[in-house]
Amino acid sequence: MAELYVVGIGPGNAENLTGAARAALEKASLLCGYTVYADLLRPMYPEKEYYTTGMTGEIERCRRCLERAAAGETVALVCSGDAGVYGMAGPVLALKPEYPGVSVTVIPGVTAALSGGALLGAPLGHDFCVISLSDRLTDWALIEKRLRLAAQGDFAICLYNPASRHRQDYLQRACDILLTEKGGDTVCGLVRQVGREGESWQILDLKTLRDTRADMFTTVFIGSSQTLEIGGRMVTPRGYRV
Amino acid sequence: MAELYVVGIGPGNAENLTGAARAALEKASLLCGYTVYADLLRPMYPEKEYYTTGMTGEIERCRRCLERAAAGETVALVCSGDAGVYGMAGPVLALKPEYPGVSVTVIPGVTAALSGGALLGAPLGHDFCVISLSDRLTDWALIEKRLRLAAQGDFAICLYNPASRHRQDYLQRACDILLTEKGGDTVCGLVRQVGREGESWQILDLKTLRDTRADMFTTVFIGSSQTLEIGGRMVTPRGYRV
Repeated sequence: MAELYVVGIGPGNAENLTGAARAALEKASLLCGYTVYADLLRPMYPEKEYYTTGMTGEIERCRRCLERAAAGETVALVCSGDAGVYGMAGPVLALKPEYPGVSVTVIPGVTAALSGGALLGAPLGHDFCVISLSDRLTDWALIEKRLRLAAQGDFAICLYNPASRHRQDYLQRACDILLTEKGGDTVCGLVRQVGREGESWQILDLKTLRDTRADMFTTVFIGSSQTLEIGGRMVTPRGYRV
Repeated sequence: MAELYVVGIGPGNAENLTGAARAALEKASLLCGYTVYADLLRPMYPEKEYYTTGMTGEIERCRRCLERAAAGETVALVCSGDAGVYGMAGPVLALKPEYPGVSVTVIPGVTAALSGGALLGAPLGHDFCVISLSDRLTDWALIEKRLRLAAQGDFAICLYNPASRHRQDYLQRACDILLTEKGGDTVCGLVRQVGREGESWQILDLKTLRDTRADMFTTVFIGSSQTLEIGGRMVTPRGYRV
């Protein structure tokens, strides 16, 4: 049976791989992925064949994986974080009907909302929204609308892709929208390079976050009105009486 | 150093444990948790001491862990799914200032939104909200408000705790709110007992979901307007042209 595993590898360090992810990577003869993430695996699996593409080669990468699996190989397509959350499981499953002989298994992984959240404390301890600020595939108007509604619902919010070279002011624009609904002293957190060299995190308020520079390896957390800084950690309580 | 690990163990099967979770469980001499989840670990770690409490014993459990850690033991407090998402990392960090000698490390895990999502396909492939329907600690009015705003924002939605013995009609009530904003043919999914005996999943539309019975081991997924059923899987596209 031709097998394609779409594997969430977590933030990229060996410790955050699940057993199921590890088993799929071991079974596969070909590992595919975005160059940066595939490179995280090379030291662990130096003997495998690799096929990597850059940032905009997602669909080409998915097709290549399906083709190689259809030809009888066991293939793993790796995604940072989870396989489904802004990951490749979606496009692979959308293309799969063209490759009826291929069996696709999605292996979940620790997405940045969770790995980054654990460093900060428990910022997503109650209802939350995950929103990507990238407008490469989504209209900015829809992103703005979601930010506003998430703030009105007093959700904790986790922002993916808060900035890139071409979108340096997007986090500031997002904060300006949130500030129309939320206080400037809302507890926020910022995590960089989770599980990788240069890992760092900080807790700051929303008005300070507005003027902070993020990059594509940053994940941002915006508290609800209930979120607290306790002992240097960011905590969104669920409501237990402690 | 007195160490307390708050460990997300994923859905409960060994395959979805991360390496970091496994390492923390191995280091600990005492494993604490809600009875059902701790029991999932006993076959893997039969030699450990266990301290378990029932459904409403959360704070007692957190205090006991902090006390035992303060006394010099290495303790692991296990949470199903992730340690932070509706988990024990929040209350532990809220209590921690009373136990200044204890070091708390939060170990993230694969929460049900991800493990259930992987079974269904990629229901959370674009911006999403996670909402718990339990009103044990949250006003139902706030839950309703969040459901309505999440629907207005056309987020994909993942519902935790959709029902329990005392809240048999909550999923129906939630669907009725969503149906005021979304079409009855919205693609939805339902996952039961992920990674455990009796694991099952199904894809159904929102009007059918409304009349479907859930229990406390069910996780529910509501698609956005873009969500599709493709080849028997649930996919919320990010917008790639495939």
